[in-house]
Amino acid sequence: MQLYELVLNHGRSVSPFVWRAKMALAHKGFAPETVAIGYGDKATIAFSGQDRVPVLVDGGTVVSDSWRIACHLEDLYPDRPSLFGGDGGRALARVFNHWCDSQFLSSLFMLCCAPTFDLTPEADQPYYRESRFQWTGMTIEQIREKGNLKQVRAALQPMRLALAEQPFLAGAAPAYADYCAFGGFMWARISTGPILEEGDIVEGWRQRMLDLFDGLARKAPSAEID
Amino acid sequence: MQLYELVLNHGRSVSPFVWRAKMALAHKGFAPETVAIGYGDKATIAFSGQDRVPVLVDGGTVVSDSWRIACHLEDLYPDRPSLFGGDGGRALARVFNHWCDSQFLSSLFMLCCAPTFDLTPEADQPYYRESRFQWTGMTIEQIREKGNLKQVRAALQPMRLALAEQPFLAGAAPAYADYCAFGGFMWARISTGPILEEGDIVEGWRQRMLDLFDGLARKAPSAEID
Repeated sequence: MQLYELVLNHGRSVSPFVWRAKMALAHKGFAPETVAIGYGDKATIAFSGQDRVPVLVDGGTVVSDSWRIACHLEDLYPDRPSLFGGDGGRALARVFNHWCDSQFLSSLFMLCCAPTFDLTPEADQPYYRESRFQWTGMTIEQIREKGNLKQVRAALQPMRLALAEQPFLAGAAPAYADYCAFGGFMWARISTGPILEEGDIVEGWRQRMLDLFDGLARKAPSAEID
Repeated sequence: MQLYELVLNHGRSVSPFVWRAKMALAHKGFAPETVAIGYGDKATIAFSGQDRVPVLVDGGTVVSDSWRIACHLEDLYPDRPSLFGGDGGRALARVFNHWCDSQFLSSLFMLCCAPTFDLTPEADQPYYRESRFQWTGMTIEQIREKGNLKQVRAALQPMRLALAEQPFLAGAAPAYADYCAFGGFMWARISTGPILEEGDIVEGWRQRMLDLFDGLARKAPSAEID
């Protein structure tokens, strides 16, 4: 197995979507070879029929998109620990995935976009600047001003309430919904630094997530000092 | 079985939490006797040890709180159709329940509060006015001005994205997560009227939900003309 990921300066693997895939693979007991690409290396993953990471090569199968990678792993390796806990769990993990993307990552974007730019090799900075301008109509400098930590923390309220009642989003043990949200926290950790207040119950969960799989996520080069 | 519900003028059963319980009971194949109370009848449910509906009396067991009622039904009647689809599904339904309460119902409150006041019998209006002032620091008149349909529709984005991919939040068939969100739509339907734009994929889902269990929800007295 090979997993293509985006790696910027100082070995920083910033993509929240790649982190979803990394954690899902570890959950299934896989430690794929990782292939680092930069924003300028999109030709390298052209074989996947699209231009975004993560891309997983599993034998003869090529899968892109973090959700499709999770489903691929669950469907192909049903005897390994489940990512969803059945069809009902999969359907609600999909709903949660959309919550993550539309409510959490969207507010996190304004916070992490400029720090991610700062980690981008100079040769790729014009691409990054231009593509983010096309998405948002704003320059990196304007986006840097817009980052709103309070808004990000407020967006996490459903997680906060649930984690007051159960140790992981998926219940007694972590599963895909946890990895899905955790990807966002890894983007923040690696590009920006800590975003949660001390004592926030979500922070306790994040620390447990950083410890999983022998500290897989904790060991990754980041902006945060543990 | 008996289910205590809040019923206002014109037979309007407005509580989103009661609707969660009604749908969960129907899902399990139960048609409990319903007991209507008003805001002034809190003494009637004092036996439950608290003062909010829904309250379910199931033989010798008294259960209040919509989430606890759902868990009671799932745990006591495991051979009937599942509300959660396993432990993973239950944990994520809990997360979704918190999303509903903190993101959807909170914005819906500003829209439905004043219309609910208008349906409240005159004798109970002072209580309603005072309790909502204590929650919000606003008068009914001020809340009426604040209702923001656009904000409610925006809050539904995670549901909208998921329902573009699967017919129900719980997957191929409805289950508790669907009833959980649907409770909010019933509050709107019964107190206020339609809140979704024509063509919204969430509206297609809502119509399917209204049809469930021989039109249980559709038949309830409401502000909406089908």
